Amino acid sequence: MIPQQRFAARREKLKKVLKKEKLPAVLICNETNIRYLTGFTGDSSWLLMGDGVERIISDGRFTTQLQEECPDIEAVIRSVDRTLLQTTADNLRSLKVPVCGFESTAISYDAAAQLEEVVETPDLIPVKGLVEPLRAIKDPDEIREIREAVRQAEKAFEYLRATLTKDMTELQAAFLLEEGMRRFGAVGAGFEIITAVGERAALPHARPGQTTVGESPFMLVDWGARTHTGYVSDLTRMIITGSISSKLQRMYEVVKTAQEESIKAIGPGVRASDVDRIARKVMEDHGVGPKFNHGLGHGFGLQVHEAIRLGPTSEDVFKAGMVVTVEPGLYFPGWGGIRIEDDVLVTKDGNEVLSSLPKDLDSSVIR
Amino acid sequence: MIPQQRFAARREKLKKVLKKEKLPAVLICNETNIRYLTGFTGDSSWLLMGDGVERIISDGRFTTQLQEECPDIEAVIRSVDRTLLQTTADNLRSLKVPVCGFESTAISYDAAAQLEEVVETPDLIPVKGLVEPLRAIKDPDEIREIREAVRQAEKAFEYLRATLTKDMTELQAAFLLEEGMRRFGAVGAGFEIITAVGERAALPHARPGQTTVGESPFMLVDWGARTHTGYVSDLTRMIITGSISSKLQRMYEVVKTAQEESIKAIGPGVRASDVDRIARKVMEDHGVGPKFNHGLGHGFGLQVHEAIRLGPTSEDVFKAGMVVTVEPGLYFPGWGGIRIEDDVLVTKDGNEVLSSLPKDLDSSVIR
Repeated sequence: MIPQQRFAARREKLKKVLKKEKLPAVLICNETNIRYLTGFTGDSSWLLMGDGVERIISDGRFTTQLQEECPDIEAVIRSVDRTLLQTTADNLRSLKVPVCGFESTAISYDAAAQLEEVVETPDLIPVKGLVEPLRAIKDPDEIREIREAVRQAEKAFEYLRATLTKDMTELQAAFLLEEGMRRFGAVGAGFEIITAVGERAALPHARPGQTTVGESPFMLVDWGARTHTGYVSDLTRMIITGSISSKLQRMYEVVKTAQEESIKAIGPGVRASDVDRIARKVMEDHGVGPKFNHGLGHGFGLQVHEAIRLGPTSEDVFKAGMVVTVEPGLYFPGWGGIRIEDDVLVTKDGNEVLSSLPKDLDSSVIR
Repeated sequence: MIPQQRFAARREKLKKVLKKEKLPAVLICNETNIRYLTGFTGDSSWLLMGDGVERIISDGRFTTQLQEECPDIEAVIRSVDRTLLQTTADNLRSLKVPVCGFESTAISYDAAAQLEEVVETPDLIPVKGLVEPLRAIKDPDEIREIREAVRQAEKAFEYLRATLTKDMTELQAAFLLEEGMRRFGAVGAGFEIITAVGERAALPHARPGQTTVGESPFMLVDWGARTHTGYVSDLTRMIITGSISSKLQRMYEVVKTAQEESIKAIGPGVRASDVDRIARKVMEDHGVGPKFNHGLGHGFGLQVHEAIRLGPTSEDVFKAGMVVTVEPGLYFPGWGGIRIEDDVLVTKDGNEVLSSLPKDLDSSVIR
């Protein structure tokens, strides 16, 4: 549970941003931002925020849910003969403000055009990146929820390891993992699970399929849980089911070293690009730099990818309260891929690794 | 599997639409439309269609996948230092056409604004509803896939009935159903499963929670499977776990009659609003008209909600090849809700009900 005061505190922070931006009102259209600011988990609804105004414009399907999830927010339930756009226009007019922002990355071109047609006053201006920077710094309730999502994911991985057999398919392995996460209290997977056997692990977006686990000596597993309040975890481990070739052994150690060295460097005030460079340097020193073909990691929370970004061109700087993944990998088309991923909380003094599944190669073997 | 010729035939149909609309080219941005036209299941990619042009603009993560899924389509893989927008601008310029449409409901206001900024020529014009009407009429491959999705969902429901106990929670019941669908060949659920016990069944968008199945005499189950090619089914049945009150008996029969009567009327040339009216009339005749507070049904296929719409204000007309749900319901806040939903194919002579789970009240009882 996230207490109502917490949502109120987040809205106060947004109001300070509005003041700083000299924006008298804003229409929050992104569902995840609405959930972050109010706790409301429905859809087809917009949140109007302004001076003394905290109002959700919704419809009759959500009347009860709004009362339960965000009792502090004024709920405007549109009648069935009025559209969301029309009701929003009515509400904007009554605000008597000269301009109102709308989240331009969360609304389609078509919907924005229709909105501009029905709204005569105030002037609508596209805005973005107002709420996302707030979400990047996790509050204590969020950190507790993310810890719980990590626990659920780790318990489920142990369950997978205990029950997996070589004749199972990638899809069956993914399903076992999801079953495990629910068993340990998750609502389900936080995102589409990757269980990629052998050379399929070289595809960055492999979908679990009918390939059998035992067809190759190793399987890459990228998974995370989602808690009831919506927070996710995001982890990757290798599962070894066959003999360990010298290439697998060498490359695994390179990835593990790159991950451990880069995690050590994470702390408040450190640039994300510098941490990415540490991992990349380890790969280059072993002559496999180009095989690490994606960024080192990313922030997560209510979404599995959110601010910040760890990569060569990132301009983000770590701050206490951020939670990020660190997931270096090496990919060899036709051979396979290796990735290790942990979840890291930035603290005042440095960082705390939230995940604790063993990651030495020996512990990855299933017999 | 959907054969490549089928995707080619769909693209030919779109080209005829473009000709009719006097549109020399269009940028398809909606992922589901891209999947429908090409078989490509990735994301972050756009499909450019024009006279002699069938080109996907994508990135290196999808090189292999594009070759496997849509070998007939020209793939432009952008380099890592060029954005999707920039590469699209290059490709549009080389087309040498005066105007190009873009799918305005599938691209955010922000992305459209950026696109307009980088594209100098051709002129960009917002378009919508070009591909969706094609998708409303299912071809033989789609009908076969939908039949399979119905079979997977029905087998899973029988599995749920065979394994459900009264001490399970809604979440556990939903998970059993999903496990069953995978067991029978689905990639998973086609949408978020509803398992709503007792009064929770009165909430149109109830999420499965910790309520125990045996807490009330009945549970509403709304579920569907998704096949490997992406097609879904969408069914609703009641499960009775306690004694049948006279209200439950009466209201169940009203819903069942409304469903059976309205299905009978479905056939090519019939108006969707007229079929909706038949169901609504049955409710009204029994004095519960206002308790049926949503439309009668909707088309489905690659998405669980797509054209057409069965409702009082719908202007759609049934055509052979359409596949729709028929799902009347009655909802009493504080008491619960009843809904029965089947999947119906419009044929040349009338219709064929694709789903066949029993729906008399006695067959719904679990002891």
